[in-house]
Amino acid sequence: MKQASYIQDFAQWKEGFSFNHKIKVRFSETDMFGHLNNTIPFVYFEEARIEYFKHLGFMQTWTHPTSDSIPVVADLQCDFWKQVFFGDSFQLYVKAENIGTSSVDLHYMAINQDGEVCFVGRGTMVQILKKTGKGHPWSDAQKELLTNKTEVCK
Amino acid sequence: MKQASYIQDFAQWKEGFSFNHKIKVRFSETDMFGHLNNTIPFVYFEEARIEYFKHLGFMQTWTHPTSDSIPVVADLQCDFWKQVFFGDSFQLYVKAENIGTSSVDLHYMAINQDGEVCFVGRGTMVQILKKTGKGHPWSDAQKELLTNKTEVCK
Amino acid sequence: MKQASYIQDFAQWKEGFSFNHKIKVRFSETDMFGHLNNTIPFVYFEEARIEYFKHLGFMQTWTHPTSDSIPVVADLQCDFWKQVFFGDSFQLYVKAENIGTSSVDLHYMAINQDGEVCFVGRGTMVQILKKTGKGHPWSDAQKELLTNKTEVCK
Amino acid sequence: MKQASYIQDFAQWKEGFSFNHKIKVRFSETDMFGHLNNTIPFVYFEEARIEYFKHLGFMQTWTHPTSDSIPVVADLQCDFWKQVFFGDSFQLYVKAENIGTSSVDLHYMAINQDGEVCFVGRGTMVQILKKTGKGHPWSDAQKELLTNKTEVCK
Repeated sequence: MKQASYIQDFAQWKEGFSFNHKIKVRFSETDMFGHLNNTIPFVYFEEARIEYFKHLGFMQTWTHPTSDSIPVVADLQCDFWKQVFFGDSFQLYVKAENIGTSSVDLHYMAINQDGEVCFVGRGTMVQILKKTGKGHPWSDAQKELLTNKTEVCK
Repeated sequence: MKQASYIQDFAQWKEGFSFNHKIKVRFSETDMFGHLNNTIPFVYFEEARIEYFKHLGFMQTWTHPTSDSIPVVADLQCDFWKQVFFGDSFQLYVKAENIGTSSVDLHYMAINQDGEVCFVGRGTMVQILKKTGKGHPWSDAQKELLTNKTEVCK
Repeated sequence: MKQASYIQDFAQWKEGFSFNHKIKVRFSETDMFGHLNNTIPFVYFEEARIEYFKHLGFMQTWTHPTSDSIPVVADLQCDFWKQVFFGDSFQLYVKAENIGTSSVDLHYMAINQDGEVCFVGRGTMVQILKKTGKGHPWSDAQKELLTNKTEVCK
Repeated sequence: MKQASYIQDFAQWKEGFSFNHKIKVRFSETDMFGHLNNTIPFVYFEEARIEYFKHLGFMQTWTHPTSDSIPVVADLQCDFWKQVFFGDSFQLYVKAENIGTSSVDLHYMAINQDGEVCFVGRGTMVQILKKTGKGHPWSDAQKELLTNKTEVCK
């Protein structure tokens, strides 16, 4: 029933995830309609994405003062399947799909404390050179890390 | 060159906008990479969307304490075409497309002080009943307001 | 050396804390100066305060749909003693001081992964009636909970 | 009736303001209690403070890539005098008091569309050297700009 343009077969898509990061809804992230404000899942995506990149060892490079490359977000999307409320918590899953020359498509899936999928999403990240703003190709080592299935972490 | 899955012909797509709302980047919206954090355009989308709905007279109904319906976001997406920096300001354009029984697809386009399109986006809003969480059909009056081209405001 | 108007003797003040909540800095909470944006510790204060109130059993009452009282913040302050960066994490301590008829003064202390006090703060919370907006006196049970030293949690 | 530790005579304190910046409450800044979340006035303070510093010509220097000094917040406080709701707008006033060697105490006052003072605040800013993190004394020109009464802007 629930759909998203980037999911063909949900069961199979779900199967592809293993890395996940725990998130808990903050009171300040709700709005006057009593639920999680729609802008917040993108904050969660960033948090989980960074934990994923840390897990792969990429983040340490990008935030190093002498690093000449940084990751930028090319696009982002989120499908809100269930209202989320204060007190809810999630396992936010992240996986890499469609690895390009200097980009990678990341997919997201948030499963709450009751095992329900509350929101899903995806977005392309590009590694760029700070100076030029142009795409900076993944090294072979980076590609391998993105390609290999990562094990469930914590 | 720049693309987004929901834009066939950019010139024609751009032509369809008239309502817009001015936004200025806050310092607290930047991140340590020195540019606008990727989660913020969704905050801007909400602000502009609400101004658009106010312009149509919808928002006043939804935020009234006795209202039995509220708008919820079904999905959202943003394509980041140009890095945005502190001090930048935008005209954020909003238009309604594909009006459904109780939903509407809104499109967004942010043009900065130099006339450059920095980011674009879209997302479906659904009018739901607070009690049931189910879609609540637009009234004829609402449909007409969404369908009619709105004039440039401010 | 470090001072705050609400701390007479730092060692003694620090001694009074036991409840604490773990916080980790998000990338989106940094700003273009490369450090934690100054507005974020107040977000952390709220998160830790709510965990503290949950620990005491107050939050469950306040967020119940039929509750006629809510807590509001009368004032808040933060003293920033050390710059905080992406990747830092804290134990954020909370304690109740100066319990009034319907108010309580909460104090905060954030200690990072290296045992350094990064920021401290305080603020008065008031329990008000939703309808009138007037202070709603603590019950005897609530007063006792606020007065008793709480044990370290997690 | 309304008090704050840093205000002796309210009428006289209010008289000292002239620079102000317009702010409008965003929907995403409300919380499930239906009002403005308590963390947001500090976001507004930063926005108004930066506009104030821009007005004085300081901000342009600090955000320049080659600048060796940046302003940091030493402490911040806010007194919440009236609940604030979605749709409210303010004139947020800023003034400089107690100019030190490399620091300045800024005071804030938010007056809503009905002329009511909703919240007030203050906080010390310090100009530091990026490299050392130590206070960097104001130049004579900076001191003069901070001391002179600024005219109402916009």
